[in-house]
Amino acid sequence: MPELRKDPITGRWVIISTDRARRPSDFTRATVEPTGSRFCPFCAGNEDKTPPEVLAYRTDGLTHGGRWSLRVVPNKFPALRVEGDLDRQGEGLYDRMNGVGAHEVVVETPDHMATLASMSERQVAEMIWAFRDRVVDLKRDKRLRYVMLFKNHGEIAGASLEHPHSQIIALPVVPKRVQEELDGARKYFEFKERCVYCDILRQELKDTERLILETDEFAAVSPFASRFPFETWILPRRHESHFENIREAEVLNLAWVLRSILRKMDRVLEKPAFNMIVHSAPVQEAATEHYHWHIEIIPKLTRVAGFEWGTGFYINPTPPEEAARFMREAGLS
Amino acid sequence: MPELRKDPITGRWVIISTDRARRPSDFTRATVEPTGSRFCPFCAGNEDKTPPEVLAYRTDGLTHGGRWSLRVVPNKFPALRVEGDLDRQGEGLYDRMNGVGAHEVVVETPDHMATLASMSERQVAEMIWAFRDRVVDLKRDKRLRYVMLFKNHGEIAGASLEHPHSQIIALPVVPKRVQEELDGARKYFEFKERCVYCDILRQELKDTERLILETDEFAAVSPFASRFPFETWILPRRHESHFENIREAEVLNLAWVLRSILRKMDRVLEKPAFNMIVHSAPVQEAATEHYHWHIEIIPKLTRVAGFEWGTGFYINPTPPEEAARFMREAGLS
Repeated sequence: MPELRKDPITGRWVIISTDRARRPSDFTRATVEPTGSRFCPFCAGNEDKTPPEVLAYRTDGLTHGGRWSLRVVPNKFPALRVEGDLDRQGEGLYDRMNGVGAHEVVVETPDHMATLASMSERQVAEMIWAFRDRVVDLKRDKRLRYVMLFKNHGEIAGASLEHPHSQIIALPVVPKRVQEELDGARKYFEFKERCVYCDILRQELKDTERLILETDEFAAVSPFASRFPFETWILPRRHESHFENIREAEVLNLAWVLRSILRKMDRVLEKPAFNMIVHSAPVQEAATEHYHWHIEIIPKLTRVAGFEWGTGFYINPTPPEEAARFMREAGLS
Repeated sequence: MPELRKDPITGRWVIISTDRARRPSDFTRATVEPTGSRFCPFCAGNEDKTPPEVLAYRTDGLTHGGRWSLRVVPNKFPALRVEGDLDRQGEGLYDRMNGVGAHEVVVETPDHMATLASMSERQVAEMIWAFRDRVVDLKRDKRLRYVMLFKNHGEIAGASLEHPHSQIIALPVVPKRVQEELDGARKYFEFKERCVYCDILRQELKDTERLILETDEFAAVSPFASRFPFETWILPRRHESHFENIREAEVLNLAWVLRSILRKMDRVLEKPAFNMIVHSAPVQEAATEHYHWHIEIIPKLTRVAGFEWGTGFYINPTPPEEAARFMREAGLS
């Protein structure tokens, strides 16, 4: 019998389709392997092919030029622009404003052929530091209410360049799905006086059926109402609403957890394309007891069909308990 | 300057990226052309390869066998099952229930090589009648709260068989996006005492910038805050919350409008894959003044990237005014 499951945060129902249950090898997949064949603006030596950097980490202590290990540059084709006023206006019943915001690219390493799974832990930690440093800087601009930190890996996940990179989009509005998560978490808190994510952590660490791995600082789980096969959430054990308040020990630990999850995914799903998104509270809002930042990773294995767009209703052919078992059993090497 | 636009129903903000503005020919596209090469369970003569039909239209007046022009059959691999109780239960903080519901396939024509754009108007009208007849039948089962009517056209839009078909999924819950639309429309009504869709119709018919075509019964528009390039909505002029209350004259008119829109899309976008979804009020609810059924068509032209999943925030590279102009100027033949 297929099962309907409800996400405890947003209230979204998902069909877990046991009749269609599939093993990892049953998915149509496109393995993502860097080819390095084309000219790449993100490779070392081509720094002049990107706009001037807004942040860089260097190993030689220089502030410009020299050898960098990570760079953050404005997107050459930005979806939003930093200059100008919001200039909110109506047009009949419609509302519009200028696309003020920031759109930046984190070049995670000079090594074109690397992936987050194959990089050193130190390098993954630098990406996390860069995310934090950019949020701390961007939030000083009071027009910007939300900072999206995300990575598209592989062409079918939306990456247009193969050099390892992630993206930062700072927005003058709070995106709708984010607001729903915040509202759902607040409602749960009002009812229970506990954080829903803390409750999920406790239950998953106790049940262990959907637990992939745990460390002193984090736990990785296949969520109870997973929308997608092998959807994976990484949750910090310490309650904290804002990602940018991450502590040094957590950064290092998260680098290990993130790399481990991606290595396991590479093994189980043969180097899939994936999307990774940091979910965090709006940057201009104070710390809250009800929201809890976390990371969601979604490997691109299935096609999203029409009704999923139109209704927000998902059919997931892989029970999360099965996904977690495959992920647990996969080695890290 | 890119522009942020707000959908007046759901409150969702979208970036209309003028810097990235693209003409129809700039999109990566996979033209959908039926090949007819494989064995097809939906073709005439293979009726025994599907579960027994729940509805069929026949030209010869027979009730079984003979020549059919349209059949509705249960999905052979259903996402939900009709038998059984909902059996709602908790599991710690989680909620689940049995996947009770219906999952049916509308075989729109015996002709494997046809498409909705190439079929006769009469045949398209039969699809609309079949949608209506099935909703009227399914809503008698009081466990079922929402009926999704949709079509995936082309493999990249999620169609696994190329024979012209659409799908019906009846659910014991109201999907989240649907509930959001209903809530948004209700809020607008509480504030204005007018239906937001009726207001959209009035404004678009007056401005004409985003209007693609209009008839006595319907109007087709590129919505102001389109999430996707060439997203198209077909709205009935007559206020009505439930699709299944469609009148005979409207069915015939809608068949012409739908076929015309798909013919225009085929011309402008070179036979794109698309998703089509009927948006309607929950079947067990009474008619309302605030909700207005309509059809949304989304050609599959762009890849949806990571942050769109995570945030519900979309970047649309084609201003809807441009899309509407291309669609208006395309002929129907």
